[in-house]
Amino acid sequence: MGNSFGELFRITTFGESHGPAIGVVIDGCPAGMRIDQEFISKELERRKPGQSRITSQRKESDHPEILSGVFEGKSTGSPICMVIYNKDQRSKDYSHIADKFRPSHADFTYQMKYGIRDYRGGGRSSARETAARVAAGAIAKLFLNHHGIEIRAFVSQVGGIGLDKSYPDLNLDLTESNPVRCPDPVVAAKMIDLIEQTRKKQDTIGGIITGVITGVPAGLGEPVFDKLHACLGKAMLGINAVKGFDYGSGFQGIQMHGSAHNDEFYRDEKGTIKTRTNYSGGIQGGISNGQDIYFRVAFKPVATIMQAQQSIDQEGEETIVEGKGRHDPCVVPRAVPIVEAMTALVIADFFLMNLNAKL
Amino acid sequence: MGNSFGELFRITTFGESHGPAIGVVIDGCPAGMRIDQEFISKELERRKPGQSRITSQRKESDHPEILSGVFEGKSTGSPICMVIYNKDQRSKDYSHIADKFRPSHADFTYQMKYGIRDYRGGGRSSARETAARVAAGAIAKLFLNHHGIEIRAFVSQVGGIGLDKSYPDLNLDLTESNPVRCPDPVVAAKMIDLIEQTRKKQDTIGGIITGVITGVPAGLGEPVFDKLHACLGKAMLGINAVKGFDYGSGFQGIQMHGSAHNDEFYRDEKGTIKTRTNYSGGIQGGISNGQDIYFRVAFKPVATIMQAQQSIDQEGEETIVEGKGRHDPCVVPRAVPIVEAMTALVIADFFLMNLNAKL
Amino acid sequence: MGNSFGELFRITTFGESHGPAIGVVIDGCPAGMRIDQEFISKELERRKPGQSRITSQRKESDHPEILSGVFEGKSTGSPICMVIYNKDQRSKDYSHIADKFRPSHADFTYQMKYGIRDYRGGGRSSARETAARVAAGAIAKLFLNHHGIEIRAFVSQVGGIGLDKSYPDLNLDLTESNPVRCPDPVVAAKMIDLIEQTRKKQDTIGGIITGVITGVPAGLGEPVFDKLHACLGKAMLGINAVKGFDYGSGFQGIQMHGSAHNDEFYRDEKGTIKTRTNYSGGIQGGISNGQDIYFRVAFKPVATIMQAQQSIDQEGEETIVEGKGRHDPCVVPRAVPIVEAMTALVIADFFLMNLNAKL
Amino acid sequence: MGNSFGELFRITTFGESHGPAIGVVIDGCPAGMRIDQEFISKELERRKPGQSRITSQRKESDHPEILSGVFEGKSTGSPICMVIYNKDQRSKDYSHIADKFRPSHADFTYQMKYGIRDYRGGGRSSARETAARVAAGAIAKLFLNHHGIEIRAFVSQVGGIGLDKSYPDLNLDLTESNPVRCPDPVVAAKMIDLIEQTRKKQDTIGGIITGVITGVPAGLGEPVFDKLHACLGKAMLGINAVKGFDYGSGFQGIQMHGSAHNDEFYRDEKGTIKTRTNYSGGIQGGISNGQDIYFRVAFKPVATIMQAQQSIDQEGEETIVEGKGRHDPCVVPRAVPIVEAMTALVIADFFLMNLNAKL
Repeated sequence: MGNSFGELFRITTFGESHGPAIGVVIDGCPAGMRIDQEFISKELERRKPGQSRITSQRKESDHPEILSGVFEGKSTGSPICMVIYNKDQRSKDYSHIADKFRPSHADFTYQMKYGIRDYRGGGRSSARETAARVAAGAIAKLFLNHHGIEIRAFVSQVGGIGLDKSYPDLNLDLTESNPVRCPDPVVAAKMIDLIEQTRKKQDTIGGIITGVITGVPAGLGEPVFDKLHACLGKAMLGINAVKGFDYGSGFQGIQMHGSAHNDEFYRDEKGTIKTRTNYSGGIQGGISNGQDIYFRVAFKPVATIMQAQQSIDQEGEETIVEGKGRHDPCVVPRAVPIVEAMTALVIADFFLMNLNAKL
Repeated sequence: MGNSFGELFRITTFGESHGPAIGVVIDGCPAGMRIDQEFISKELERRKPGQSRITSQRKESDHPEILSGVFEGKSTGSPICMVIYNKDQRSKDYSHIADKFRPSHADFTYQMKYGIRDYRGGGRSSARETAARVAAGAIAKLFLNHHGIEIRAFVSQVGGIGLDKSYPDLNLDLTESNPVRCPDPVVAAKMIDLIEQTRKKQDTIGGIITGVITGVPAGLGEPVFDKLHACLGKAMLGINAVKGFDYGSGFQGIQMHGSAHNDEFYRDEKGTIKTRTNYSGGIQGGISNGQDIYFRVAFKPVATIMQAQQSIDQEGEETIVEGKGRHDPCVVPRAVPIVEAMTALVIADFFLMNLNAKL
Repeated sequence: MGNSFGELFRITTFGESHGPAIGVVIDGCPAGMRIDQEFISKELERRKPGQSRITSQRKESDHPEILSGVFEGKSTGSPICMVIYNKDQRSKDYSHIADKFRPSHADFTYQMKYGIRDYRGGGRSSARETAARVAAGAIAKLFLNHHGIEIRAFVSQVGGIGLDKSYPDLNLDLTESNPVRCPDPVVAAKMIDLIEQTRKKQDTIGGIITGVITGVPAGLGEPVFDKLHACLGKAMLGINAVKGFDYGSGFQGIQMHGSAHNDEFYRDEKGTIKTRTNYSGGIQGGISNGQDIYFRVAFKPVATIMQAQQSIDQEGEETIVEGKGRHDPCVVPRAVPIVEAMTALVIADFFLMNLNAKL
Repeated sequence: MGNSFGELFRITTFGESHGPAIGVVIDGCPAGMRIDQEFISKELERRKPGQSRITSQRKESDHPEILSGVFEGKSTGSPICMVIYNKDQRSKDYSHIADKFRPSHADFTYQMKYGIRDYRGGGRSSARETAARVAAGAIAKLFLNHHGIEIRAFVSQVGGIGLDKSYPDLNLDLTESNPVRCPDPVVAAKMIDLIEQTRKKQDTIGGIITGVITGVPAGLGEPVFDKLHACLGKAMLGINAVKGFDYGSGFQGIQMHGSAHNDEFYRDEKGTIKTRTNYSGGIQGGISNGQDIYFRVAFKPVATIMQAQQSIDQEGEETIVEGKGRHDPCVVPRAVPIVEAMTALVIADFFLMNLNAKL
C-alpha cells in the first residue's frame, strides 16, 4: 500500500527503476482543462539526470506517454494515466548488489517487509519513481495556474553553504539560471564548487530546498489532522532522502517570544486583510490565511557513494559494498521540481476540498 | 473534513473547547484487548492544565466516559467512543474576542473558510481537542505494549535552553520527575526558570520535544507516499503550535557527507542485524529497520499572550486584542503526552497494515 | 472497521443496543446550515419502536443530544456528534442468549470474527444502531432540501401483498397516514392485517420498501466503481435484514427487449431534455440524468421469533433458543425512515463530490 | 473520481475504449505470490468479444502487459500495473454519434457532468473497461486459491428462460461447456436459441448471473456499513448494465415466514458448526458464517440496438440514432468472468481486512 496520494486530486504511482516502465494515474483532475504536454515534458527535463555537470551523468528517457483521460487536448474527468518507459536499464550494473544490503538504502527494509525485492537500481525505492510525481505535479500546476496560484522552489543550502537572505529578498527568476537552482548566483557558484569537490572525493552531501507558494486564497486546509502544513509536510517527507520539514518560522521560531512571533493583522490600502509579519508562514490553525506559504525541506547526503563500505548480505554474512554507476553527489538540484510537484498536488487537493466548506 | 486519522486503527475526534463535550471514536481497535481505564486517565492527567506551576492554572475535568466498544473490560472490535464533558466553560471569558481576530490564532482563517466560527475558547481549534487524541493514544499504547513497542517523549529544548546530550545518554525515567518533562534535572531547572520568567513578562516561548520509539520490528511503514516518517511527520504537524519535524540526523544531517552519514550494517553476537550508527533514525526507505526511531518536534511560542496587540475585527476595523484567562507560557511540557499519543496512533496503524505485506 | 459511510459527507456511527449510548459523528457537513433539531427528532420518532400496534412495543428513548459542531443553531463545518443515551436497557432479558447462537442472527459470526461479543440485545448488530443513521440522515435531508432534492420511501409489499401501481400513480402524501407506511390505504389495510395475523402466530414476515428521489440534477454519481446506484445499493444492503436491491426496471427488466427498455430522449415544452420512459431509473452510466431515481429494497422476515428453535451454544452443544421480549413481526414499516436516511447520505455525498467535476 | 475499488487489495482502472490503452494498478497485493500470466490471459479470453457466435463479433486484443510489481515471476508488494493496448480502434465507426445522445447510454450524463466526453465507442463508459477488472480479478483469484476459496459464476436466466434448479443441484463444471455459460445444457440450448432470435430481430435481451463462493472461512466482512453482501452488491452494481442484486433468499425471501427462513445451526459429524438451510446465503450480520455464499445479478438488455431510435443531439435538437458496429445481443455470457473478477476483489479485500480483527 502507500502508492496513492491525495483525496480528491488523487494520484497512484507504479513502476520500478529497471522494470518496463514507471507511471502514474491521476483520478479527480477536473474535466475541461487543457493538458499542455510540452509543459509536462519541461518539468520532467528539470528532474532528469544528466542535465548538468553536477548531477548524475546517467541517461534516462523521461518522455511521458498519455494513455487515457485526455481527449482532443483536454482532460475529460476520467483518470489520466501517464507512462514513462524505461530504456537505459543496464541491469548488469546492479548484479553486484543483488544479495547485499547497501548501507542507508531501502534494501534491508524491503527484504524484511516483503521477503522479496527487485534489487535492480533500487527497484521501487529508486528516486526514478519521482518522475511520475513530477508528471502528475505538472498537471496539478496547470490546474492551480487557472486559479492564480504559483509554486516555486529553490536550493537554499548545500552542506554548510546557505543563503543569508530569505525569499522575499531574492529574485526567484534566477533559480533556473544555474545548475544548482539557487537564486543567488554568488552563493550558487559556491554550492556548485562544493558539490564538485564532494564528487571528486567520491562522497555526497546534503542540502535544503525552500518552497514558496503565492496566490493561495484564505481558507485552504482542513482543521485538526489534515492541516495544510501537516499534509505538505507529509508530502515532502515522502520524497526520497528527506529528513526534515518546517514552515514559517519553523525550528528557528522556538527561540522567539510570542509577542514578537505573533503576526498582527492590518488592512492595506485596498482593504485587504494582511499580516505585518509572516512567521505563521501563511497558515494559521492549519488553514491558509492568504499570505505567502513558505517552508524548508532537509535532504540527507545521498546514500550511494563511490567508496567501499562494510555491510551484510542476505545470508547475514559480512561483506563489502562498492558504489558503481552514475549517481548524484548531491540530490537537491534535481529535487527542486519534485518539491514543486508534491506541493502542487497538495494545494490542488485542498483547493477542491474547500469547495465543500460552506453551504 | 480532516477530523479522522489513520487507516486501520482509525480515530475521529469531535468537539469544541466550550461546547458540551469533546470526544473520539476509534474504529479498528482489535477485539479482545483489556482496556485499562486507569491508564487512560493517567495519560490525560499528564496533558491537563493546572498540573504544575508552569502550566495554565485553568481547571479542566478530563474524565473520559466510554460510551461503546468495550464489554466486560475488553475491546469487542466495535468502535470505541470516549467522551469528555466540558464542565469549566466560563463562556464569558471569551466575549471580548467574539468579533476580533486574535493574531496568529485560527480565528481569521476559520471565519474565511466557514463564514462562521465558534469563538468560545477557540472552538474546534482549541488545544483542548488534543485531550481526545491522548485518550485514543492511550488505547494505541496498550495495543503496542502487547507487541513490545514503547513510546517515550521528553522536552529537549525551551527557548534557547537545550539538552546537550542525545537520548541514548539520558535517563528517560527521569522525564516525569519534573514539571517541564526534561530528563536532565539540571537543564530542567533552567527551563523551568526560563518559563517562569517568560510568564512574568506576560509573554510566551517555544520549544522542542524529542520522541523515541523502541522495540519496533523491521518492516513497519509503507513505501512511497506513506513512509513511516512521512506519516509520523504529518501526525506531529497536526498538533497545535507545531512548526517543524525532523527524524534521525534531520536538519543537522544536511552538512554531513554520505560516507559519515551512512549506517553500516553488522551482525551482533546474537546474530541480529543492526547498524553501527543510527543517523537513519530507525527508518530506511520509509520502513522501520529495527533500530530505535527518534525524531524532533518544534513548537512555536503560544499565540495567546497577556499583552495588548493590534488587530482587525470582523468588520475589518482596527482594534486591540488583549489576552485574558489562564494560558500556558510554554506549551511543550503539556504537549509531551500528545506527541506520544499521536506517535502511538501512527505505529499501531502501521503495525496492523503490515500484517498484509506478505502472502 | 466498517463503521463509517461516505467520502465528503461522512458519518461514523458507534454504540451498542444495551451499552451506555449510541451515536454518530458527521464530518463534512457544510458550514452555515441551520440545524433543525425538531426535524431530527421527528425523523427519529418515525423509526422508534412502540409507535403503533404493528411494531415492537419496546420503549426506547430516542432523544438525540448534539455534542459538537453546531453553534448558535448553525453548522460550523466542524464534526457534528449526536448521542442517544440508552435508557430502557433491561439487560436481564438477554441473559438467556448469552452463550447461545440465535439462528440467522449475527451472534455466531461476531463470535467467530472477534472471539468476543456483547450479547445484550445483539450489541452492535442490533437495529438500534440505525437510529444514529436516521439522525445523521435528517441533517443530510436538510442539506438536500436547500438544493431542491426530496427523498421519499414507502412500503410497497408485505409478504405476498403488494401494490399494483408504481409510484407515479400513487399519492405519496398518504404514506404516513397509516402505521404500515403504504400510500394506498386499501392495500395498507391488507398489509396491516397480514402483519397482525403473523404476530399472532408468533412469526415474522418480510417485505419491500420503494424509494423515490426527485429533484436530482443531472451529473451526480461517479463513473465506474462509484456509480450512483452502486453506492445506493451498498447503502441499502448495509441496513439490517436487507437481502436485495434493484433500481429502475431492476429484476423485471431482464425480460424486456432493448428496443422497449431504452428511454428515448426528447425536449419538453420548456426545452428541458427528458426521457419518455424511465426504465433507467434516473441513472445512466452510474450518473443521474435528471429524471426521478427510484429503487426497491427487499427485507427478509425478522429473525427473532417467539418460537422455540434448535441451535448450538458457545461450547458447540445443541440447545433450544426461545424468543423473548418485544420484537417486530415485520420490519418494513419502521425501516422506511432508515431507507430515506441512507438515501439522503448517499445523495448529499455525491452532491458535494460533483462540485469538483469540471474546471 | 470513482475509479478505485477496495481498501487493502485496491485497484484503480484507467483507459477509454478507443484511446491508446486501458489498464489497472493493483496496490496491496501481498508479496511473494506467483503471478501466473497464463491464467490472467485465460480469464481475459472468457470476457473478450468474438469468442462465440452469440457474442459481438468485434475483435479486441486483450493481451495484458505487466509494467510493474512483478519480479522473477512473483509479486513484490509494489503496485502491479497491467496495460492492454487498444489495437482495433476503428474510430470512424463512431463519428455518427459524436454529437448525439444514444438512448440509455452514458452519453448524456457524461456530457452533463463533465461538459466534455470521449464519444468514441463510449469512451470511459464502454464495457471494454471491464477487461482491466478481469485482469486484476485474476490476481485476486490466485490469492484466494492460496486460501482455499473458489469463485464460480454462471448464467441462470436469459429473458424469460431460467434455470429451475438452484446451484447445489447443478454441475458447475459444465458452465464453460457452452457459449452461454449456463451449467444445464438443455436450458443453455434454449438460451442460445433465444439470443440468436433476438439478434436476428436486431434487438437485445437481459439476463441473470448467479455467483457462488465456496471455502470462505467464518469471519469475513465488516459490520454496519461494510457488510460483506453490501460491498459485494456495490461491486456487482458497478458492472455495466447491472440493475439489481440479491443474495441468499433475496427478493424471494420476503414472502417467507421467519420460522421457515431462519437457518438452524447444528454440528456435523466432524464437529463443524453448520446451518441446515442456507437462506442467509452464507452471511449473517454482514459477516460470512462459513457456508456457501451465493447471489444473483440482474443485467438489463444491452442499450445498443441495430434499430433507428428517436433522440436528441448536443444542441438539443431531435435526431435519429442508428446502431452500427458489432455488439452483443445479450451481455450475460461475457459478463460471467466480470462477475467472478469483482467477487474475487471483494473477498480478497475482506480476507486481508480480517487479519486485524482480533488481538
